[in-house]
Amino acid sequence: MSGAGTRGAFVVFEGGDGVGKSTQVELLVRRLEGAGHEVVRTLEPGGTRLGAVLRGLLLHGDGGEVGPRTEALLYAADKAEHLHQVVSPALERGAVVVCDRYVDSMVAYQGAGRVLDGDEVERVARWATGDLRPDLTVLLDLDPEAGLETLTDPDRLESAGLDFHRRARASFLALAGRDPGRYLVLPARRSRDELAEAVGVRVERLLSEGPAKVSS
Amino acid sequence: MSGAGTRGAFVVFEGGDGVGKSTQVELLVRRLEGAGHEVVRTLEPGGTRLGAVLRGLLLHGDGGEVGPRTEALLYAADKAEHLHQVVSPALERGAVVVCDRYVDSMVAYQGAGRVLDGDEVERVARWATGDLRPDLTVLLDLDPEAGLETLTDPDRLESAGLDFHRRARASFLALAGRDPGRYLVLPARRSRDELAEAVGVRVERLLSEGPAKVSS
Repeated sequence: MSGAGTRGAFVVFEGGDGVGKSTQVELLVRRLEGAGHEVVRTLEPGGTRLGAVLRGLLLHGDGGEVGPRTEALLYAADKAEHLHQVVSPALERGAVVVCDRYVDSMVAYQGAGRVLDGDEVERVARWATGDLRPDLTVLLDLDPEAGLETLTDPDRLESAGLDFHRRARASFLALAGRDPGRYLVLPARRSRDELAEAVGVRVERLLSEGPAKVSS
Repeated sequence: MSGAGTRGAFVVFEGGDGVGKSTQVELLVRRLEGAGHEVVRTLEPGGTRLGAVLRGLLLHGDGGEVGPRTEALLYAADKAEHLHQVVSPALERGAVVVCDRYVDSMVAYQGAGRVLDGDEVERVARWATGDLRPDLTVLLDLDPEAGLETLTDPDRLESAGLDFHRRARASFLALAGRDPGRYLVLPARRSRDELAEAVGVRVERLLSEGPAKVSS
């Protein structure tokens, strides 16, 4: 993962559904590729062959409705395999990995249902990933209620759902607050280009200075 | 799980491949059904619809070769779902659950590869199962080398494999040694009927006296 001059890094985008993560991933990838970096763009869940099967189980119910611990463990298995097959090999050869969702999403969403303890979910997720932490996590933060205004189908965020998304948001912010040096928290309502510029500048600084040490 | 007179219990069979677990499961189930108990016979991995998919991923490589943490997490997901869908509901209505392999197999085999720490595997398995412990685990113990004599295809236990199976056996015995009141360790070379009688007598005692308290 180290080398002379510019070097690889692990950059993750986190935040709720519809905050613009995939757009910002795309813009960052283009910017870095334009500057001559090898970039690996990937996502969780689903970034491997196994992940595609698990994504089917998790998001489309291919294995029937499953219990909350089962669901968390399937997400963790997806993470473990994604790290093993995609993220670690790319970092080892010096690439920049840009990943849509990682451990924080698992902690925020699996914990927000209130059935599972967030700290326990985090322990499982950290074990799955060998506690490899991103060099930078970009959190696109948005009040879930504000999301209601822009939705064409507001029923998607009904009352119970809104509480769930509020808890997930609080969890994302709490994770960022615990390790601020590795996070860039941006209000997702800022314009696409403003966000892209803030992210790009920060990632370029990371690549020229070298990433923060991975804590364990 | 409690009731007047006889009551439900969770009985697990553990041990290496080919020691006769499924025969003993069958004989115990017949004995208990003959005595009028509701018995649920099940197995890990694979006792649920999701489990069948995961069994395909784990034992037949449907998702490609996977990393060691991924494998452990898929086994854990199978366990969580099996407990959620099969074991807990059966125990709640007072049935006797007889299960072929449980947490000990996961710890013994995932830890025996030496890539993963056995204690960490155990923590994941305990979390997956909400730390529900069997009332009785029957460990059919056999020296893996002795198994060689009876195998028609001795190449299956080549030198590296033999060490692996020795470590798995040591792990099974260590787990039994930590909580001897909940284990019945039997030499698997004893005759089918001798084993069945020893198991049957012990399980009948368990059902009449009531199971040990579940530790947590």
